[in-house]
Amino acid sequence: MNFASDNTAGVSAPILEAIRTANSGSASAYGTDAPTAEALRRLAEIFETEIAGFLVATGTAANALALATLSPPWGAALCHAQAHVNEDECGAPEFFSSGAKLVGIPGAGGKITPQGLAATLAGFERGRVHQVQPAALSLSQVTECGTIYSLAEIAALSRIAREAGLAVHMDGARFANALVALGCTPAEASWRAGVDVLSFGATKNGALACEALIFFDPAKAASLPFLRKRSGHTLSKGRFLGAQMCAYLEGGHWQELAKAANARAQSLAEGLAAIPGVRLPWPTQANEIFAILPRRVDAALKAAGALYYEWPFPPAGEPSTPPGTDEIFVRLVTSFATEEAEIERFLGSALGAPHP
Amino acid sequence: MNFASDNTAGVSAPILEAIRTANSGSASAYGTDAPTAEALRRLAEIFETEIAGFLVATGTAANALALATLSPPWGAALCHAQAHVNEDECGAPEFFSSGAKLVGIPGAGGKITPQGLAATLAGFERGRVHQVQPAALSLSQVTECGTIYSLAEIAALSRIAREAGLAVHMDGARFANALVALGCTPAEASWRAGVDVLSFGATKNGALACEALIFFDPAKAASLPFLRKRSGHTLSKGRFLGAQMCAYLEGGHWQELAKAANARAQSLAEGLAAIPGVRLPWPTQANEIFAILPRRVDAALKAAGALYYEWPFPPAGEPSTPPGTDEIFVRLVTSFATEEAEIERFLGSALGAPHP
Amino acid sequence: MNFASDNTAGVSAPILEAIRTANSGSASAYGTDAPTAEALRRLAEIFETEIAGFLVATGTAANALALATLSPPWGAALCHAQAHVNEDECGAPEFFSSGAKLVGIPGAGGKITPQGLAATLAGFERGRVHQVQPAALSLSQVTECGTIYSLAEIAALSRIAREAGLAVHMDGARFANALVALGCTPAEASWRAGVDVLSFGATKNGALACEALIFFDPAKAASLPFLRKRSGHTLSKGRFLGAQMCAYLEGGHWQELAKAANARAQSLAEGLAAIPGVRLPWPTQANEIFAILPRRVDAALKAAGALYYEWPFPPAGEPSTPPGTDEIFVRLVTSFATEEAEIERFLGSALGAPHP
Amino acid sequence: MNFASDNTAGVSAPILEAIRTANSGSASAYGTDAPTAEALRRLAEIFETEIAGFLVATGTAANALALATLSPPWGAALCHAQAHVNEDECGAPEFFSSGAKLVGIPGAGGKITPQGLAATLAGFERGRVHQVQPAALSLSQVTECGTIYSLAEIAALSRIAREAGLAVHMDGARFANALVALGCTPAEASWRAGVDVLSFGATKNGALACEALIFFDPAKAASLPFLRKRSGHTLSKGRFLGAQMCAYLEGGHWQELAKAANARAQSLAEGLAAIPGVRLPWPTQANEIFAILPRRVDAALKAAGALYYEWPFPPAGEPSTPPGTDEIFVRLVTSFATEEAEIERFLGSALGAPHP
Repeated sequence: MNFASDNTAGVSAPILEAIRTANSGSASAYGTDAPTAEALRRLAEIFETEIAGFLVATGTAANALALATLSPPWGAALCHAQAHVNEDECGAPEFFSSGAKLVGIPGAGGKITPQGLAATLAGFERGRVHQVQPAALSLSQVTECGTIYSLAEIAALSRIAREAGLAVHMDGARFANALVALGCTPAEASWRAGVDVLSFGATKNGALACEALIFFDPAKAASLPFLRKRSGHTLSKGRFLGAQMCAYLEGGHWQELAKAANARAQSLAEGLAAIPGVRLPWPTQANEIFAILPRRVDAALKAAGALYYEWPFPPAGEPSTPPGTDEIFVRLVTSFATEEAEIERFLGSALGAPHP
Repeated sequence: MNFASDNTAGVSAPILEAIRTANSGSASAYGTDAPTAEALRRLAEIFETEIAGFLVATGTAANALALATLSPPWGAALCHAQAHVNEDECGAPEFFSSGAKLVGIPGAGGKITPQGLAATLAGFERGRVHQVQPAALSLSQVTECGTIYSLAEIAALSRIAREAGLAVHMDGARFANALVALGCTPAEASWRAGVDVLSFGATKNGALACEALIFFDPAKAASLPFLRKRSGHTLSKGRFLGAQMCAYLEGGHWQELAKAANARAQSLAEGLAAIPGVRLPWPTQANEIFAILPRRVDAALKAAGALYYEWPFPPAGEPSTPPGTDEIFVRLVTSFATEEAEIERFLGSALGAPHP
Repeated sequence: MNFASDNTAGVSAPILEAIRTANSGSASAYGTDAPTAEALRRLAEIFETEIAGFLVATGTAANALALATLSPPWGAALCHAQAHVNEDECGAPEFFSSGAKLVGIPGAGGKITPQGLAATLAGFERGRVHQVQPAALSLSQVTECGTIYSLAEIAALSRIAREAGLAVHMDGARFANALVALGCTPAEASWRAGVDVLSFGATKNGALACEALIFFDPAKAASLPFLRKRSGHTLSKGRFLGAQMCAYLEGGHWQELAKAANARAQSLAEGLAAIPGVRLPWPTQANEIFAILPRRVDAALKAAGALYYEWPFPPAGEPSTPPGTDEIFVRLVTSFATEEAEIERFLGSALGAPHP
Repeated sequence: MNFASDNTAGVSAPILEAIRTANSGSASAYGTDAPTAEALRRLAEIFETEIAGFLVATGTAANALALATLSPPWGAALCHAQAHVNEDECGAPEFFSSGAKLVGIPGAGGKITPQGLAATLAGFERGRVHQVQPAALSLSQVTECGTIYSLAEIAALSRIAREAGLAVHMDGARFANALVALGCTPAEASWRAGVDVLSFGATKNGALACEALIFFDPAKAASLPFLRKRSGHTLSKGRFLGAQMCAYLEGGHWQELAKAANARAQSLAEGLAAIPGVRLPWPTQANEIFAILPRRVDAALKAAGALYYEWPFPPAGEPSTPPGTDEIFVRLVTSFATEEAEIERFLGSALGAPHP
C-alpha cells in the first residue's frame, strides 16, 4: 500500500526487457546510438510533427533545460504558484537559466486561469530595464493538484502567452496520465494547443530514468545540446535511454501504463469519497488523489501500513474549506504498478477506522 | 573491434542482473532507498573510512559537483591543461561553480608535476582581489594520456596543494583501472595520498550509468544534496543507482572488470609496439593506448572495420616526436567487454597493411 | 516640480566640494585610498561598532552583493512582495547569488508582519532537498510604500528570522530618511534591532553615486572583496567614493539632508490630504508620498509641469479602497533639493483643478 | 613620482568642471538624461557610424558586459594569455557570461599573432558538444605589455576571427593612448579594422569613473540594457556619467590627455634606456613602460619615494632575457597628470644609484 508517489514504483516489464536487449554489443556513445535515434523518430511520429528531441534521466533536468532555453537570465518564467518547477526542484530553473525568475500565479485547483495570467502579465512593463522580462509560460499537465487542463484551457492560456511574446512550456512529468484522461492525440494535447516545448515524462509512468525534452520548433533547440552536456545530462551509454523510450512508446505501452494508474486512482477516489468525513477538494482526473481525512482515518491507515504524504493545503483561493484541527490533508498517488487489491485493502482500513 | 571508448561497451552481467533484482516492489524515492544506503555503506567499507557519498548518473555531474563544492565562484580549480574537466565537459565545472576558473597546467604524459603545480600557484597572489583565488587541485587518475600517477606522485602533489590551502579532487572516471594497475588499496590510492573528494567512476567500467561522488571529509559535503537536486541529478528511482553500485562493488567485481580491460590493453599495446613504424608515446598503464600509426596501417585497420578516434597530439613538451604527415595519432580504449580475439584480429589487420 | 524620484536631484554642495578637494595629487587605486579608509572609520564610529564596510556606486550593487553573501545559490531571500530587490532590480540578487530565489511576502503598507514572515517560513522544510532553503530576510527601510518599520517591528522580524537561522539584510537606500523620522541612533536602527548587513544609501540623499555596504559582523564579509571586484564594482579611483561618503557623514550632513527631504514631504502630504477627493493610503513617514488623485487633479498638475510617476496599486490586502476609474494612483518623492516653493506651486496647481 | 598606474591620477580639470556644471537642477534618472544622450551622440559622430552605446563606471563592467553579450555560457572568449580580462578581473567575464570560458593565447609582447589565433581555433571542433564553442575574440589595445596592435594586425586577427564566426571585442581601457600613437581615426582603429564591440575607456585617461561600451552593430546590443541593470551598473544619477564623457570628448580633450601621457612615457623610456644596466623588453608605444632594473637602481628609486609595481615577467616566448637575480622587472605608468619634472626627478634618482 505505497501511495507515496508514482516514482516509488519500479520499471515496467517491457521497459526492463528493452534495457536488457539493448545491452548486446557495442554502441556509439553520448546519444549518438541507434536506439536513441529510433526513439526520437517514434516521438516525431507520435506527435505528428518534426521535433528536436533530447533524452535525459530526470524530469528536473528536462524542465530546467527547457526553461533555460526559453528564457534569458533577465527573463521570467510564469508558472502556477505551486508548480513543481517553482516549489520542488530546489531552484533548478534558476540555476540552469543563470538566474531567471520564476513568477508564481495563484489559481484554484492547481490551474492558472486566463485572468490570472493576464493580470500577472499586466504587472510587467516590456522593455523597462528595472524588471525582468516575461519570456515563458510553464504549464504543469497533470497539475500539482492532480487536475487536468482541458485542451480549450491550454489553448486559451497559450494564446495569451504567445500574444505577449512568451514561449509555452509544458511540464508533462505525467503527460501520459493527462493524455489518456483527455482522450485526445499527443499532438492535440501539446503543439496543436500552443505548446512550444514539452517535458515528456516516462519515469513516473514505468521507465527506469528517462524523460524526453521535445521542441516542436527544432530551430529553438540550437543551444540545447551544449546546455545538456554542460549540465552533465548527456549520458555516455545513451542507448539505454533510447531503449527505455522505445519500449515506452512501443504499441501504446505508455498509454496502457497511464490508463492503469488512472483507473486505480479512480477506484481509490470513489472509495474515499464514500467514506464519511473524507473530503476531496478537487476532482481526481489522473493518478493523484488529494484528500482531507479525519485524523482517526489517517491513524487507522497508517496502522495498516499505508504509505502516503501529508501535503501542504494551498493558500487562500480554493473553494474547499481547509482541513480542521482533527483533519489531515494528504496526497495519494497510484502508478502502473498499483494493484486493485491494494486499493481494496486501503479502503478497508479506512472504513475500519473507529467512529468518532 | 570497437576501441572508440570504454563507454561504447554495455553493462556487465552482474550489474544488469542487479538492476533486474532491484525492480521488485516499491522503494523510497530520490536516493532514500535501501540499495543506495547499502552502496554507500560498502563504499565506506572499501575505502576504510567514514565518507559522504552521492550517486549520480554521469561522470561530468560527479566532477562538476565536486569542483563546485570545493571552489567558490571567484576561485580557481587547477588541473592538467588537457584534463577532461577542462577540455571535454563543455564548461560543466564553470557552470556548476557559477563561474569559477579552470587553470590548466602543462605537463608531459598527461601528468602535472610538482614543479608545474608550484609554478602555477606562484602566479597567484593570495587575497589580491584582481585575481581568482586557487581553491582546488583536480587530478585525473587515469590521466588523459592513459598514464597513472604513482602514489608518491599523488602524495607530492596533494602536499603542495594542501599547504597552499587547496582541496584535492580526483577525477576517477577510470579509478578502478588505475587501482588494479597500482596494486594498492582504494584508501591508499585516494585519501591516504591526500585526496579530499573522489569521482569514483563505474560507468566506463561496466555500469549502465552510475558514478559515486565521495567526500572523505563528510563535513565538506553539506551543500552537495542541494547542488545535486538543483542540477537535476537526484534520480527519483534512486534504487537503480544503488543496485548498480552494489553489484559493481560486490566481491571485487569492479576490480575484475578493470583487470580484464587493462589486460586487453596490454596485449594491444605490446602487439602494436611490435609493428614496424608504430610508436607509442607513453606507456600503457591502464586501458587506453595512444599510438602514432603510419597512415597505411590506419587505412588497413579502418578497412577491416576497426573503430577508434584520431586524437589531438599534445602541444610542445612531450618527449615523443609529434606525428609526421604520413602518420596519424590515435587513441584506442579497451573495456571489460573487449575480447582477446578482437585484439588479435586488430593486430592482424595492422600487420597486414601494405609495406611502404 | 520634479517629484519623479529623489535620484533626479543632483549632488549636495558639500559633497560636490569634497569630490573637488579629493582630486588633488595621486591616490592609491581600487579602494585602498585614504578617503575610503576615513569613510569606513567614520561609519564604524557612527554605528558604534566594528564593521566591514564597502563603498559601491549603486544601491542595486549593494543589495545584490549583500544577498549574494548571505544566501547560497540554493537559498532563498525572503522579502516583501513589492520590495525593490524583488521587483525593480531586474533580477540582480538572482544574478549575484548565482540563482538564489527571492520569496515575496505580502503585507499591507509595504511591511512584512511577524505573522506573514512566520507563515512563509513554515512553508519551508529545512533540509528537504526539493526546496530552496531560506537564508536571509531583506527588509526595506523606508518601505516601498513610504512607510517606516518601528524599531520594535524590526526587532520582532529579526528575532523570528534569526531563530530560523536567517541573516537579516536591510535595504537602506533611504536609511537616512527613516533614521531621522525614527529619531534614534544609527546603531539602534540597525544592528541593535537585529540587522546583520545594511545597504546604507547616500545617492538618493545627496551623493553623486555612493552607497556603503556594511557588515556588522566583519567575519561574514570575507567573500565580499572578491564578489565586488568580480561584479565590476571596485572603482579604480576609489578616493571619490570615499570623499563622497566622508562629506555625507561630516557633521551630520546626511541627517540634515534627510530632514529637509522629509519636511518637504510632510508639507506636500498635508497639503494633498486637504484637497477634496485626494486620498493618501498610507501615512507619509519619510520622503515619499503615495496618493490617489482625481484624474482632473492629475491633469491640472501635469498641465502645470509637475513630474511624478503613476504607480501600480498594490494587490489585495490594503485597507484603502483601490483607485476608481476616475482616479489615478501616483508616487511623489521629495529630496534634499526640493524647495518649499515647489510644494506650494504644486499644491496651488492641484487646488486650481476644475471642480467636478 | 607615482608611476603605479594611470588610475592613481585624479580627474582632468574640464571633466571635473563638467560634473559641477551638470549638477544644476533635476534630471531624468537611470541614463535617460540629456548629458548621456549627448555623449552617445558625440560618440557616434566621432566613430562616424551608428552605435549602441552604454556608459558605465568601470572598465571591468564594460569588458564583462561586452563578453557576456558576445558569448553564450557554453562559449569561449579567446584572448591573450595575460589579458586583463583573463588575469585581472577576478573572473568577471565568467561571472557576467554565466560561466563562459576564457581561453588564453600566448604571444610575445602581449600580442596575439594570426598563427596563435589560428592554432587555438584549430583546437576547437565546431558543434562538438564536449567542448565550449569559440564565440568571441578579445583584443587589448594598448596590450598588457604596453605595445600597440597596428591597424593591419587588428584587421588580420579580426578577419580570422570573423571567418570562424567569432565576434571581435576590443578592451580599450587605454584606447585613447593607442589611438594617438597610431595616428588614425577612431573608426579606423575600431570597426573599420573589424572590431564589433569596444570598451572605450576614459577613467584611466582623466575621467572620474566612466567608460563607454560601444556596439558598432546596434542590433547586437538588445540584451545589454537588462544585463547592465541586473549587474548594478545602471547609475541612477546617470547625468554625471554623461557629463564626464561629453567633457572627455569635447574639442579633442581625450586625445590631448592621451598625448600628454604618451609623451611623458616616451621621456621616461628614453631616459631609462640610457641608464647602464636597464633593459626595456618591449618598445614603449603608449603610456606604459616595462623595465628590467638592476636592484641597486630600484633601491635608489624607492629611497627617493618613487612608486611603481614589480610585475610578473611573462612566461617563455619573449625574445628578452628574463630578469636575473640582481634585477627586478617593473611596470611604470604615466598619465595625463604626470609632470615632466617628475620624470626628471625619477631619472635623476635612477642615475644617482651607486654603481655596481
